[in-house]
Amino acid sequence: MSKCVVLHSGGLDSTVLLTKLIREGYDCYPLGIEYGQRHAKELLAAKHVCEALAVWEKQQTLFLRQLADLIQSALTGRGDIPHGHYEAEMQKATVFPNRNMILLAIAAGYAETIGAELVAYAAHSNDRAIYPDCRPEFVKSVGETITLGTDGKVKLLEPFVDYRKADIVHEGFHLGAPMQLTWSCYEGQERPCLQCGTCLERTEAFVRDGTRDPALTSEEWEKALEYLRRYTP
Amino acid sequence: MSKCVVLHSGGLDSTVLLTKLIREGYDCYPLGIEYGQRHAKELLAAKHVCEALAVWEKQQTLFLRQLADLIQSALTGRGDIPHGHYEAEMQKATVFPNRNMILLAIAAGYAETIGAELVAYAAHSNDRAIYPDCRPEFVKSVGETITLGTDGKVKLLEPFVDYRKADIVHEGFHLGAPMQLTWSCYEGQERPCLQCGTCLERTEAFVRDGTRDPALTSEEWEKALEYLRRYTP
Repeated sequence: MSKCVVLHSGGLDSTVLLTKLIREGYDCYPLGIEYGQRHAKELLAAKHVCEALAVWEKQQTLFLRQLADLIQSALTGRGDIPHGHYEAEMQKATVFPNRNMILLAIAAGYAETIGAELVAYAAHSNDRAIYPDCRPEFVKSVGETITLGTDGKVKLLEPFVDYRKADIVHEGFHLGAPMQLTWSCYEGQERPCLQCGTCLERTEAFVRDGTRDPALTSEEWEKALEYLRRYTP
Repeated sequence: MSKCVVLHSGGLDSTVLLTKLIREGYDCYPLGIEYGQRHAKELLAAKHVCEALAVWEKQQTLFLRQLADLIQSALTGRGDIPHGHYEAEMQKATVFPNRNMILLAIAAGYAETIGAELVAYAAHSNDRAIYPDCRPEFVKSVGETITLGTDGKVKLLEPFVDYRKADIVHEGFHLGAPMQLTWSCYEGQERPCLQCGTCLERTEAFVRDGTRDPALTSEEWEKALEYLRRYTP
């Protein structure tokens, strides 16, 4: 049974990924990292997800909030979270510079420490337009760097790299992933704002899958559909 | 004048690198990172070096001690620091898994934030035997990953990748680098132990250059030479 560190934020994509790997028989070690994101609330969702998937005891959260002192983004409180479509130019304000390389480098160091030969993360093709660290050429390169940096001991697993988010939702239902417990909204308020890039992207994925978001009430889902119509270019 | 984030630990190599880049006209932003190293004292040396080089105001230290909760090494207090030659097998205890990828990923995110187009670090060829993250193939790969992860905005500079440590010492004297202020010893006690891998490597570099270590007293230097003779295979 291969040991695998899974970057697990508590969002939808990484939750479906974690569920998939557990179902496939990997010995999973979920890792959440606080990097100063204003939606640090996703890390609480991660705890609930890991409880539901019975991997609670192997879950770790690393608190590196100080990163946000040096590396800035709307995600960590510089300026407002823009409302609007997730592929719109203004969404670039939500890029946390080089975030995935930082998170993956740490996950790989942790994997080597505990003797895990794999690190998994949930990069997918929807995010390519805005986030350079979700593009396939980045994913390939970061995987090679991890293998070289750990002297061949750790490899990268990214099974969703060619999925659209709707494909992840589809697989999530198929696997019975606890998507109702996940948190995506960048605002990190009491309930999802339904208007930021990640909320709209999430709504769109369920719509494309022909299903609805199990984390929302009926009223919220109606509102989400209305925002999606309003903001879709 | 190109803006450049320089990974600067307060050790000899990164201090010569910083001096070199300042002399060459780069606008340097030294970055020290506490990752739980027991020789965190090097970060104090870094402050003194930056004062001597008049880049004190642009220096930043990032405190990420929590990394050592998950990523373990003799460097961060798991087991003792081994005494003996820096290329000996037992020195592998001092590998902090994937350290340079973690530090460089963070430095690149910081560079993008402040609009610096370069990140520099002082990998050199002496350390290749033990540390995978100092080998040229790693250096090449991590540079590509940084460029892809920052959408082409940041590039890696590693002018010492083919130097031996003695070449760095030589350049250090030539440039008038404040090597007397640097700290290398992994033990992090009051004075250098002169017997750990990094102390012996440092002594050997000065010997090969035909000079002596300006950070040591005459008595310490004599002792350092004695240990070098004892431990060299």
